[in-house]
Amino acid sequence: MQRTYIGDILRGRANGREVTVAGWAQDIRNLKNVTFIVLRDSTGRLQVNVKDQKLRDAVSDLARESVISVSGAIVEEPKSRLGAEIDAYSINILNRSDAPLPMGVDDPVEADFETRLNNRFIDLRKPEKAMIFRVESSMLWGIRKFLKEQGFVEVHSPKIVAAATEGGAELFPVQYFEKKAYLNQSPQLYKEILMSAGLDRVFEVGPAFRAEEHNTPRHLNEFTSVDIEVSFADHEDVMGILENAIGQGIKQVKEDLGGELEALSLRMPEARVPFPRITYERCLEELSRDGINVNFGEDLSPEQLRLLGDRMGGFYFITKWPSSLRPFYTMPDPERPEITNSFDLQFREKEITSGAQRVHDPKMLEQRFRAKGLNPTDFEFYIKAFRYGMPPHAGWGLGLERLVMILLDLPNIREATLFPRDRTRVVP
Amino acid sequence: MQRTYIGDILRGRANGREVTVAGWAQDIRNLKNVTFIVLRDSTGRLQVNVKDQKLRDAVSDLARESVISVSGAIVEEPKSRLGAEIDAYSINILNRSDAPLPMGVDDPVEADFETRLNNRFIDLRKPEKAMIFRVESSMLWGIRKFLKEQGFVEVHSPKIVAAATEGGAELFPVQYFEKKAYLNQSPQLYKEILMSAGLDRVFEVGPAFRAEEHNTPRHLNEFTSVDIEVSFADHEDVMGILENAIGQGIKQVKEDLGGELEALSLRMPEARVPFPRITYERCLEELSRDGINVNFGEDLSPEQLRLLGDRMGGFYFITKWPSSLRPFYTMPDPERPEITNSFDLQFREKEITSGAQRVHDPKMLEQRFRAKGLNPTDFEFYIKAFRYGMPPHAGWGLGLERLVMILLDLPNIREATLFPRDRTRVVP
Repeated sequence: MQRTYIGDILRGRANGREVTVAGWAQDIRNLKNVTFIVLRDSTGRLQVNVKDQKLRDAVSDLARESVISVSGAIVEEPKSRLGAEIDAYSINILNRSDAPLPMGVDDPVEADFETRLNNRFIDLRKPEKAMIFRVESSMLWGIRKFLKEQGFVEVHSPKIVAAATEGGAELFPVQYFEKKAYLNQSPQLYKEILMSAGLDRVFEVGPAFRAEEHNTPRHLNEFTSVDIEVSFADHEDVMGILENAIGQGIKQVKEDLGGELEALSLRMPEARVPFPRITYERCLEELSRDGINVNFGEDLSPEQLRLLGDRMGGFYFITKWPSSLRPFYTMPDPERPEITNSFDLQFREKEITSGAQRVHDPKMLEQRFRAKGLNPTDFEFYIKAFRYGMPPHAGWGLGLERLVMILLDLPNIREATLFPRDRTRVVP
Repeated sequence: MQRTYIGDILRGRANGREVTVAGWAQDIRNLKNVTFIVLRDSTGRLQVNVKDQKLRDAVSDLARESVISVSGAIVEEPKSRLGAEIDAYSINILNRSDAPLPMGVDDPVEADFETRLNNRFIDLRKPEKAMIFRVESSMLWGIRKFLKEQGFVEVHSPKIVAAATEGGAELFPVQYFEKKAYLNQSPQLYKEILMSAGLDRVFEVGPAFRAEEHNTPRHLNEFTSVDIEVSFADHEDVMGILENAIGQGIKQVKEDLGGELEALSLRMPEARVPFPRITYERCLEELSRDGINVNFGEDLSPEQLRLLGDRMGGFYFITKWPSSLRPFYTMPDPERPEITNSFDLQFREKEITSGAQRVHDPKMLEQRFRAKGLNPTDFEFYIKAFRYGMPPHAGWGLGLERLVMILLDLPNIREATLFPRDRTRVVP
């Protein structure tokens, strides 16, 4: 179907005066001599003026949100509030909507979140909701483009696995024919194996699954994980890659969507690379100056992170976390094994992601398994890759929905997820 | 770590004469006055000459495939068969390998496939095996780049679902807290819902899961599905997008890897757009001229496809398949409902992918469910999106591993899968 996007008409970029547009009849008003239709497509809205009586009869009782195509002439100097008008020559009804709608597209009062998620196909017709996913797509494109330029290979690791990444609970069981298997919590073990395989620098974008029992506005049971792993690299190297990837992602969003974001009152933060670094121990000192005492080895509470966030501003790294707070695969500092070559990337008080240099010595790895109460024999398929030539390596993993939630300052991670999966929700 | 890739030295693109290289000691030979090490990284191999006695002592009993870094001087006119040499000043042993290796990297006789898959971290150290995944990554980049230029939004739909896409068996059950759920076979229903949501044109790259009982060289139980869906489009529109996406993918592979592919005796076919089209019924006529009678409604057998493939050459579309051979969501031809607005993309005798215009009318959709023996109430979350303004739409879905297997003419789809999942294999 040859059609013109409404956005091109609004911006005066349509070819010619006669066009065919297609979309949803968001509003239909019958006046004495004319019927007005507000027509919406993915790029904007315009007013359709229907004067011909036969056409008016055809559309006068059309339900809102029906899908139509309209051929007509662009009105040269439209007075309508939408900024563009078409005088209709012909109208084709492509799919009639039922009435009433389960929720409105343009209601002054927003439906409750459950209703919105149950009717996501209507919720996303609101430009400010759809825009979140355009941002997510652009952000990801910017990150991928940067990683490709840096020589990364995009890989796909299995999501059905026999062993738990972090050995913990929080696993969804899968019946894999006669075997018991699980949904993978993270591609961590696989991307590390690929370092032993010599792929040098890999990234993966794919789903990860966590059977967390508690619903919060910040957690999903299924999310999109963006992971990298780099050989012959340490935590400093991959912090550099991370800050540049985020910076390029934000740049891409502004390039692709800048004007539209502003029009919807959405804003992306500035990312000035390099981001400041502060060690975990320095954080404790800063807090103690405010009279807050945190013992070495304790995690930082949301309130403490808020204080630090106020001081540090936008993006910053907290580095060198205690070993006790980090998973088995995190490399201890060679000089001081009670701390690790690790980092969290923060935006104000919020954690965007974490990463580290990894243990590459198989004996140290087995010790770390045992120290964390895990049985190395359960991870033989993984440790084996360390025994026959595993290079030093480092990496990070980033939840895409969480990143977008934080950058766009959304109140709930489900806003950045098309069809969220949580403690109770597995439909739609 | 500051290091130089071996590939840059081989191509004379290293900065300066003194370099640090890092990788795997593939071979170590002790001669009278010198020790030779064949050092391999992800970009190539070179010879390290170790003359200093202290260094020789340190590496003389080093196990093959140990990971080392070497600082030294590039030899100006190397006589070695590898094309580049370094005289070592210093050697750093980063991780010692155990011996013997579970399989060789450079053995004249290849290990059997099971051993290779069990030790994928060694198997992929062979450049011709790793290259398959570089091709996959480049191919995907080329396809994504084209789709982005065409205005597509990249999306992520849930993999844990409550309903079966095609209603069939072949589903892996997941225990989702107290609920029974499944791993999704395809993002089909979700990408269609997103058309009702007004996202206009979307694509997704993600895992899909099929609990097929039988092992074949062409099937995986978990694979990477590349899916698109386009609003206000029919099968012809998305065939155009498909042939261009494949064409751009192949172009990207040649751009990124052309010379290296040739060096490894791997070849990508030419893609001359537009690809020829032939209808299913025309295929039957062609076959009957060869004395082969296929009744309308029967699928084409591998032998019949081989005959057609010989006649049609490389890429071609078979269009307008019978309704009985297509899933419920396929749009019947409005003039002749016994055939559909559908297509398969073939490469010689092999099917790369299939796609179609979809049913958008909710009543027709319910009829099609019933005609296929499915209960529409099981799909209420999906049909609902059709009742309140679903535009006409079309799309396709493509298995990435299958595409790469076909284009590189690999004997088994597992060759194009890092860690395959099949009837018996869920590790590593």
